[in-house]
Amino acid sequence: MLVEKIKNRESGIVLYGITPPKKETPEDKIAEIATRQIERLQHLNIDGLILYDIQDEKSRTSQARPFPFMETLDAFTYSRDYLSGLDVAKVIYRSVGKYTEAELSQFMMEASPENELSVFVGAASKSQDVTLSMKQAYALKTHIKDAPLLGGVTIPERHQTKGDEQLRVFNKMAQGCEFFVSQGVYDVNASKNFLSDYYHYGQEHNIPLAPILFTLTPCGSVKTLEFMKWLGISIPRWLENELIHTHDILQKSVDFSEQSWLELKDFADEKNIPIGCNIESVAIRKVEVDASIELLRRIQKTV
Amino acid sequence: MLVEKIKNRESGIVLYGITPPKKETPEDKIAEIATRQIERLQHLNIDGLILYDIQDEKSRTSQARPFPFMETLDAFTYSRDYLSGLDVAKVIYRSVGKYTEAELSQFMMEASPENELSVFVGAASKSQDVTLSMKQAYALKTHIKDAPLLGGVTIPERHQTKGDEQLRVFNKMAQGCEFFVSQGVYDVNASKNFLSDYYHYGQEHNIPLAPILFTLTPCGSVKTLEFMKWLGISIPRWLENELIHTHDILQKSVDFSEQSWLELKDFADEKNIPIGCNIESVAIRKVEVDASIELLRRIQKTV
Repeated sequence: MLVEKIKNRESGIVLYGITPPKKETPEDKIAEIATRQIERLQHLNIDGLILYDIQDEKSRTSQARPFPFMETLDAFTYSRDYLSGLDVAKVIYRSVGKYTEAELSQFMMEASPENELSVFVGAASKSQDVTLSMKQAYALKTHIKDAPLLGGVTIPERHQTKGDEQLRVFNKMAQGCEFFVSQGVYDVNASKNFLSDYYHYGQEHNIPLAPILFTLTPCGSVKTLEFMKWLGISIPRWLENELIHTHDILQKSVDFSEQSWLELKDFADEKNIPIGCNIESVAIRKVEVDASIELLRRIQKTV
Repeated sequence: MLVEKIKNRESGIVLYGITPPKKETPEDKIAEIATRQIERLQHLNIDGLILYDIQDEKSRTSQARPFPFMETLDAFTYSRDYLSGLDVAKVIYRSVGKYTEAELSQFMMEASPENELSVFVGAASKSQDVTLSMKQAYALKTHIKDAPLLGGVTIPERHQTKGDEQLRVFNKMAQGCEFFVSQGVYDVNASKNFLSDYYHYGQEHNIPLAPILFTLTPCGSVKTLEFMKWLGISIPRWLENELIHTHDILQKSVDFSEQSWLELKDFADEKNIPIGCNIESVAIRKVEVDASIELLRRIQKTV
């Protein structure tokens, strides 16, 4: 049970992350997509399924978005209406700036605390118009009886420039977050730097650590690589060179992701920092989805 | 033979780097130091011994120097007068800004091209007063018959901010440098980023690569760690935390240095980039010197 594992601060939690189908998808097509997803995931023994809540991040950067922004179905609706046949916990993302107080409250009241969790996501930048701030969203949760278990987002790469990501995480813990999901990891050093400061802060202040789930994303093309950079994912120069110059970028990115995970696991296990994984499949091409499943299987062998 | 290995662009060159004794050291004490160094190194099968030419780098930063600057004996004089009993090639550093044209010319004429090499080092910053620029020094060399084989310094960490270290290296190659010695490596990622761009630039322009010798420096105390940072060596946050919190910083730094080397070697071997090592011992404490020898032995087992 995912909720139990998180509450026990266990290492080795493995999630799989997907984006709901696009908004204008015809209903029979949605059902088809959902059936395929269920078939693919039901025997894989994952601890939970993340359903993202995409927001247009164009306010974060002035650079052109390599892929167009597409609105998707609501994650909670899609999960309830189409994925109920998949018997794993669902982690429903909520970009809180998109919702009213009433909408977010209703979601939290409806969600089943045993097997529906949530992660609140803040605005992509300070200039983005929001209906609800993260602070308001966290405060709202305290008034809901049996609200879903809450996680937060962490961006280890932000630690490279600001050096205070561990404080942001502990601050979110104080506001009710019990686990964290990272942005896609291609810069292991940044993640180790964050984990190290996270660990030492916890030690010094005698605060038990919440599980950190590192997101791994196979990369299927140079354009996807550009998109990841656009999203703010930092990719070490050598790794970028390797991916650009290889004849099989997808396979190479799977290999690197596995290596990154093993390096993080070595580092975290030595200190008993609870870490886990979120293998993300945000692409549509079958070969990319298959690669994410291959990565998932490889990771599961290690935890 | 070091000169041959460099000319053949071989991988696995291992040097050992030392600083000559301080200037005011009494003559009998110098002889004693030299005897110990010879005893320690003569059976270690190193490819060569680097003798540094220390310059006060205070113009590079406004922060207080953790250790006082001490002038040392001239590296060439010390090598000739005291270390001739050590039958390995000597790599004599020359901080060119300290010398007149006549002095540098004389050094190049006197040095024996078979077993005395040199590395020219530039000013620590643009504001430092210099007698001779790097460009002048390189030009000077072209007029000397049988001048020593010349190497250059490379600073992979500079690549993190400027992104053009490979161009600096190729530019120095065009001016006569046939090998490179890095600044102390604690940030493997920076070194891999540099190596990757160095490799691809060489491939694209069809220029064979000169050996890059990575400098590894055991760190014996938190104060030494501060000094390395003062010198501009970048130390990943996680590694700094590990070194500060361990009960045996010296041994831990030897372990990390060996790991760094293995990671660089894996990366370079796959692409046939010729790399090697310079194990540096700039401290005086016996335990630190011993640690550098231990690191040297460990590295030698891997090449």
